[in-house]
Amino acid sequence: MSSKATPRTITVAAAQMGPNQKTDSRASILNRMLKLMDDAASQGVKLIAYPELALTTFFPVHYLTDEEEIASYFEPTSAAEPYALLSSPHVKPLVDKANALGIDFYLGFAERWTGEDGKTTDFNTAMYYSVAAGTGVGKYRKVHLPGRTEPLPDPKAFQQLEKKYFTPGDIGFKAFRAPGLVPDALKAEDVGPESETVAKGDPILGMLICNDRRWPEAWRPYGLQGAELVIEGYNTTAWAPQYDGTPEEQQETAEFHHRLSCQAGSYQNALWSINVAKCGIENNQGLIGCSLIIDPNGRIVAESKTMDDELIVATIDLAKCQYQRGRVFNFEKHRRPEHYGIILDQVGLQEIPLLSGA
Amino acid sequence: MSSKATPRTITVAAAQMGPNQKTDSRASILNRMLKLMDDAASQGVKLIAYPELALTTFFPVHYLTDEEEIASYFEPTSAAEPYALLSSPHVKPLVDKANALGIDFYLGFAERWTGEDGKTTDFNTAMYYSVAAGTGVGKYRKVHLPGRTEPLPDPKAFQQLEKKYFTPGDIGFKAFRAPGLVPDALKAEDVGPESETVAKGDPILGMLICNDRRWPEAWRPYGLQGAELVIEGYNTTAWAPQYDGTPEEQQETAEFHHRLSCQAGSYQNALWSINVAKCGIENNQGLIGCSLIIDPNGRIVAESKTMDDELIVATIDLAKCQYQRGRVFNFEKHRRPEHYGIILDQVGLQEIPLLSGA
Repeated sequence: MSSKATPRTITVAAAQMGPNQKTDSRASILNRMLKLMDDAASQGVKLIAYPELALTTFFPVHYLTDEEEIASYFEPTSAAEPYALLSSPHVKPLVDKANALGIDFYLGFAERWTGEDGKTTDFNTAMYYSVAAGTGVGKYRKVHLPGRTEPLPDPKAFQQLEKKYFTPGDIGFKAFRAPGLVPDALKAEDVGPESETVAKGDPILGMLICNDRRWPEAWRPYGLQGAELVIEGYNTTAWAPQYDGTPEEQQETAEFHHRLSCQAGSYQNALWSINVAKCGIENNQGLIGCSLIIDPNGRIVAESKTMDDELIVATIDLAKCQYQRGRVFNFEKHRRPEHYGIILDQVGLQEIPLLSGA
Repeated sequence: MSSKATPRTITVAAAQMGPNQKTDSRASILNRMLKLMDDAASQGVKLIAYPELALTTFFPVHYLTDEEEIASYFEPTSAAEPYALLSSPHVKPLVDKANALGIDFYLGFAERWTGEDGKTTDFNTAMYYSVAAGTGVGKYRKVHLPGRTEPLPDPKAFQQLEKKYFTPGDIGFKAFRAPGLVPDALKAEDVGPESETVAKGDPILGMLICNDRRWPEAWRPYGLQGAELVIEGYNTTAWAPQYDGTPEEQQETAEFHHRLSCQAGSYQNALWSINVAKCGIENNQGLIGCSLIIDPNGRIVAESKTMDDELIVATIDLAKCQYQRGRVFNFEKHRRPEHYGIILDQVGLQEIPLLSGA
């Protein structure tokens, strides 16, 4: 038994994907994902992250009315089979390869969920597949849906309609453990009284999707649960005609905000993050790249260089989370929730009153 | 009446200060502050920000036991006279000059507060002096005190003892308005129904101190209250013998974390910030510089270049906060407090349970 953090080292990858055009077949997209997993295996990767809505084109930027077409973008799940997609032809080849190669994966997909009451709800979802468990061990449904419920009237406007297609996530920010992901993890019986700052047991993970990363309220719950790694996939618009600036300026700003948000979330919660893009020109609409692996100091340790399918890989030590958790970000010593009430009590911005006489 | 944001333009300054040595007289420090205010006036500045604990050396890095010496670093205030320091010889020359030049100021100081019950409490405080009001119109007491209550036993160790000298702030994050700071502010009677996204009336400000800037829970309350500008002074250790890395590496990391935190806080709340250092080698201990003025996009618009007294100035349009507040950071549309409960319910990190059998 030791009071020092043991190495909790693992090789992980962000499987950045180039565009999925509307005309691309499911099979061709899945084949690219399988190839990225093969590449990962050749580099010793044990965990690979695919982007948000990885299996299809990013359909929420289109105003669709054909229910059959809309349904074609979704994977059915249910209370009885929460990970039903794993046995569908859309995903099973990925599961089979993951099992063969010993690689866990994070996957973003559109989820059409039938609850116990038989009611169907659509979510923008991510799931974590664990090889050791042989099934999904974590699901996250996007909480911070951007965009609108109804299309903008201007026919030339760029549309962002996630609020039309999806219901905000109903699970919240629920960290989970990935069994066996770090083979030499400290066991419960090895853990002594000095070990308060030693992460123990199987790695603690969290998941976010795209716009969530801009919201510190989305990162903090994972930090509070001891997450050592947050995985986040995204489709982020590079520019739109109705926004300020040239396309180049807009894209540079979008990349800046992306890096800033992911680096701040990692630093302020002293955890690793994998942030993975679907990018490039998809159906004539630009999406940013900049897939990132970030350390618990907020430093970028790996970044994509292309706007296409590209694997970025890093070998990361989860124990590095403990350094800042014992110092600047010792939450127990320094946080003051008695002053945070407004964060829950108030949803929107409410300007304080005008001065009397003003 | 217009539905567009009116220009709410103002010239502001961060009055970065070089070191205040223990041996420096109060008068010599105050003279430097007066000179910075004169420089500001010559550049049309209407609001100047001084650092945390600007009037003295940064005494919390020393283990002091002489109560008389400790008292010498504090300014007395009371329930009857919450801004008593303004008429003390330690601050009155600054007030007189501010009135003569028409410049509001933010000032960090050590506050020895006597409450209505006669009990005395020490706080690490910032106040906002308004020329139009002729007194202080806002006070902030540092919530996130870093460091320890007792010194480290190693005589060579760098000490950080804010938790020994100060009580955590009891006011919370209370935004306030600065009367007359923007002469052409929209008046209440000019405000029509289309003006939901138009900031109106006197500017809404917030204050933070040093370590607070690393905590998104400290910025968000100001964003929710419609603050257009947050002012933050700091004394941030550049390196210490017991920390990892060479002094140069540590300083670079400290500056990186400083920028990251201030830029993220500004961007994620769509507000301006002024972040102002006391810096340089103070009593043989390095403090970082990097005073910053940051726009509501998180972009740095002005940054100090020295490690000494230096004024950085920017002309800023407070109306620029409204752009992101109507889009990505429209809190009313996008925030989901029903999933943020853990942020208040739990203070410290609590690792989720081990998997059964682990």
